[in-house]
Amino acid sequence: MEDIPKETQRFRVRGHLWLESEKDRFLGPGRIELMEKIKEHGSISKAASAMGMSYKKAWNLVLSMNSQVEKPLVLTQTGGSRGGGAVVTPEGEHYIEAYKALVVRFQEFLANETRHLQG
Amino acid sequence: MEDIPKETQRFRVRGHLWLESEKDRFLGPGRIELMEKIKEHGSISKAASAMGMSYKKAWNLVLSMNSQVEKPLVLTQTGGSRGGGAVVTPEGEHYIEAYKALVVRFQEFLANETRHLQG
Repeated sequence: MEDIPKETQRFRVRGHLWLESEKDRFLGPGRIELMEKIKEHGSISKAASAMGMSYKKAWNLVLSMNSQVEKPLVLTQTGGSRGGGAVVTPEGEHYIEAYKALVVRFQEFLANETRHLQG
Repeated sequence: MEDIPKETQRFRVRGHLWLESEKDRFLGPGRIELMEKIKEHGSISKAASAMGMSYKKAWNLVLSMNSQVEKPLVLTQTGGSRGGGAVVTPEGEHYIEAYKALVVRFQEFLANETRHLQG
């Protein structure tokens, strides 16, 4: 790419990444953040608040994730005086870790491509 | 990732990619398609129509691209009975080619990561 003008030196390669099945998105940055907030706060409603997301939206994201795997990623307990809590399961933890490792490789790809562009 | 459940075999890694400067997006799939439609139709308004995009939107994308490089990617001719045409410059062609080569490498990355996930 020797003939690409010098201005490319100001550009960076950026991107988004997600996992999907035939039917639906499965995991992306928002769903990962939601699981992390559920771990932190122990409830979907508090996790949703922390993200400025409606409870309904967060609940639907959890439903979508859980419906696409055999073992749920997030377990919810309904009822009780505090409206029930939520926990991220070991399967959920596995996916969080796998996704983060994927993102690290993606960041390396983007950094390489940015160097390539500027080279 | 031996301990990731079998259901991952149904998931694919997908993504989006774009180039940006400090200030603004520079190139992404929409802008590349717009340049290709300009090549095909010889005018911004026809290219916009072909993409179901407003002329104003297409014009602003061209302005944004051109304002971030020394030599414009798209040249426009105003006036004339047909409202003026537009051409993609050699610089524009370079960026289209560089972007497409980048996308090929990105598709390889995504395919590798999908295999990794399913492995």
